[in-house]
Amino acid sequence: MTIPNVSHSVTIRAELNHRPGVLGRLTTAIGEAGGNILGLDLIEANSDTIVRDITILASDPDHAQAIRLVVEAVEGVHVQSVMDRTFRMHQKGKIEVVGKSPIKNRDDLSMAYTPGVARVCLEIARKPVEVHNYTIKANCVAVVTDGTAVLGLGNIGPYAAMPVMEGKAQLFKEFGGIDAFPICLNVATSEALIEAVEMLEPTFGGINLEDIAAPRCFEVEEELKRRLDIPVFHDDQHGTAVVVLAALRNAVIVVDKKITEISVVIAGAGAAGVAIAKILKNAGVPEIIVVDRHGAIFDGRQGLGGAKDWLGENTNQNKRHGSLSDVIAGIDVFIGVSGPKLLERSDVQKMGSRPIVFGLANPDPEVLPEEIEGVAAVIATGRSDYPNQINNVLCFPGIFRGALDAGAMAITESMKLAAANAIASSVGDGELSPSYIIPSVFNKSIAPRVAQAVAEAARLDGVIRLDRI
Amino acid sequence: MTIPNVSHSVTIRAELNHRPGVLGRLTTAIGEAGGNILGLDLIEANSDTIVRDITILASDPDHAQAIRLVVEAVEGVHVQSVMDRTFRMHQKGKIEVVGKSPIKNRDDLSMAYTPGVARVCLEIARKPVEVHNYTIKANCVAVVTDGTAVLGLGNIGPYAAMPVMEGKAQLFKEFGGIDAFPICLNVATSEALIEAVEMLEPTFGGINLEDIAAPRCFEVEEELKRRLDIPVFHDDQHGTAVVVLAALRNAVIVVDKKITEISVVIAGAGAAGVAIAKILKNAGVPEIIVVDRHGAIFDGRQGLGGAKDWLGENTNQNKRHGSLSDVIAGIDVFIGVSGPKLLERSDVQKMGSRPIVFGLANPDPEVLPEEIEGVAAVIATGRSDYPNQINNVLCFPGIFRGALDAGAMAITESMKLAAANAIASSVGDGELSPSYIIPSVFNKSIAPRVAQAVAEAARLDGVIRLDRI
Repeated sequence: MTIPNVSHSVTIRAELNHRPGVLGRLTTAIGEAGGNILGLDLIEANSDTIVRDITILASDPDHAQAIRLVVEAVEGVHVQSVMDRTFRMHQKGKIEVVGKSPIKNRDDLSMAYTPGVARVCLEIARKPVEVHNYTIKANCVAVVTDGTAVLGLGNIGPYAAMPVMEGKAQLFKEFGGIDAFPICLNVATSEALIEAVEMLEPTFGGINLEDIAAPRCFEVEEELKRRLDIPVFHDDQHGTAVVVLAALRNAVIVVDKKITEISVVIAGAGAAGVAIAKILKNAGVPEIIVVDRHGAIFDGRQGLGGAKDWLGENTNQNKRHGSLSDVIAGIDVFIGVSGPKLLERSDVQKMGSRPIVFGLANPDPEVLPEEIEGVAAVIATGRSDYPNQINNVLCFPGIFRGALDAGAMAITESMKLAAANAIASSVGDGELSPSYIIPSVFNKSIAPRVAQAVAEAARLDGVIRLDRI
Repeated sequence: MTIPNVSHSVTIRAELNHRPGVLGRLTTAIGEAGGNILGLDLIEANSDTIVRDITILASDPDHAQAIRLVVEAVEGVHVQSVMDRTFRMHQKGKIEVVGKSPIKNRDDLSMAYTPGVARVCLEIARKPVEVHNYTIKANCVAVVTDGTAVLGLGNIGPYAAMPVMEGKAQLFKEFGGIDAFPICLNVATSEALIEAVEMLEPTFGGINLEDIAAPRCFEVEEELKRRLDIPVFHDDQHGTAVVVLAALRNAVIVVDKKITEISVVIAGAGAAGVAIAKILKNAGVPEIIVVDRHGAIFDGRQGLGGAKDWLGENTNQNKRHGSLSDVIAGIDVFIGVSGPKLLERSDVQKMGSRPIVFGLANPDPEVLPEEIEGVAAVIATGRSDYPNQINNVLCFPGIFRGALDAGAMAITESMKLAAANAIASSVGDGELSPSYIIPSVFNKSIAPRVAQAVAEAARLDGVIRLDRI
């Protein structure tokens, strides 16, 4: 049973007889049922009754329901309503679109809309690059999905993907000051997805691809980068890769190794695995072995294709064969972007000295940190309840902020490397430790640091709009 | 020369010698140059100089430039900068996307994003109609254009159309509380436009088509209404038609006629003209004649096609031939949605008793009100500087508000008629007069009234989602 948590919290509104002991019986009953009381609010009171809102953390929906029944059974307590806090937060959506200035009178209207707006339209018609200056395109990113690989839920489609894309848009604003908008597409093919985004492009200054299944995600990103002159970025690939590289840069310092001398095994050859292999190669990691469900990928292995061809040609130069457990012997770093419980303590014991283990499968990592205590020197996961959380929020707001600020037309490899360096270097040398290799997702200074580094890299790469005003 | 106006206002920041008489010379010079001083602000002052912002209404950009030169020539004045207020208002766009609640800590994050969001996703996957409850689809309208007929500017394309669509989104929020988002599409054909909107549909609860040229606008609306189960509404057609009908309902009361007994000539057979003819027919107007550049449209006229076929079959039953000037004799109502200076005073003199004249071409109406004073009994235009402004803002926020509130899957004819009635009846019988047949666009009570009437009509029509929760 999961620990009671806020994702499964409910608020029970209950009427209590106004007598001593009733509240005590109620809170005791909730505690005995395994519920954690987060808050207790008085709604109204008279001489006979008191109405209270009791907010309770539960483990899952069944647990929440069990707690409700327990509360109802307490003598002197009458449940008026039970409200699921997560669902209430999602009621009618989590984002809104607002004007930057009010339209209260004719003067406001005549500048924001007709007739004044016509002058701005004509200016853009005359000089198209001005659309990046006088419209939301200057600061607007589409969060695009087809709903084929949403979180760990799989192909749940574009409708059910909406809450995730809205949440992403919230994070873009909160951390990057970017106006992002969910674009959940009802498309059956890669070509349709590509065409939809191409048609939509006039409104947006950047495209964040999200939760699109492999191999479609590779084709779509590749082709959109070719067709569009605004940044296109598949966060599940490159956001993850950037944050992994940032964490790895610091982890190797902790274990006193060099990134240009380590060996890395990556478990998982999906979107994230491929992107991590690519960025590590670009960062100078000399030995990278990617393992999929059939074992280590090497050049010439039967049945490769697509992105795995690239892996065959560009990783595992020694053509090591075998299972994860076979190839991990002597390796410095394990990075898992696959599934739960793939790695044993005995596997980690076979690794090189002071091994680094990133188990990033969500919610259950490839190996639980407690299982490899004392063996692994540095451990990271995707979870917030262990140290060293690898979270894309550290990357995507800053990388798009930097790209938009610079007027970048693409996100290049060196912009990604710059982002990783900026994240890594935000943990000072004096602060670095096995349990602190990556900053907190709530550190608001990260995105501006990343943005500055990314904008600078864009200028050096010469991918900025030359006629930008 | 146009009257100096806020659309062409500039703010000049100037350093003035701190001596008596300098400001007087400056304001006099601006006045003599035809500029209207809207405001004067002190920015900083020391013993030698004063820096002031002078906001000045000009007639057009050339006039603003001329005023700048005049200001620069005043002795003791040094211009530091000139800022165009309309362009400044458009800098980086006029709208923004914000979260409804902050994401400040792990609890916020775990409800808005992972892991909590997964429960909401799964609920929508299980029961798709919940997307209308737990996402912005509940309250979100796409303002869709291909940029082929933007304002009176013509086919300026999707990029240059952005400022108009953003302005529209602002109005949706300001008047209807609706989260609207500009979708400016790079498409070459009607079919591409239709497909793009169909692919986008998961995100939106309604589609507002805008500034799409005829005949594409007809095909696109028709087909999207067929394919989608959310409201599709071409505002240039139906928004205009609804407000015209509202104004006409009141105008006929003023001249003591009945809507079921009047004759109407409509000049212009584009999107607005066709929609006005349709709504007037539905409202019971017995005689409608639509005139295009070739004269009155009648059944069997050479070269009809598309929407004009419908006009041939459904209007002008007496098959009157001839020019506007020919067919207007004896007619009760003229409605112009065509171009400037189409109607002469002598034409209006030929109309029936107490004629009603709506000259809605923008910015220059078919006939200026001052030219037909004493002849026309009621006059309306599209302009804010004459009485009786016919403005779509009176319709679209309320009609979508009502449709979304009711969970309507379409906008039916009776919903449009209900909207027109709600607008018309917001002017009380005691208030009605030749110069007050339609409420102000800034009357915030209109949209809720329209919404309520539209939602009620949707329920009566049975076009609401039956399984709506």
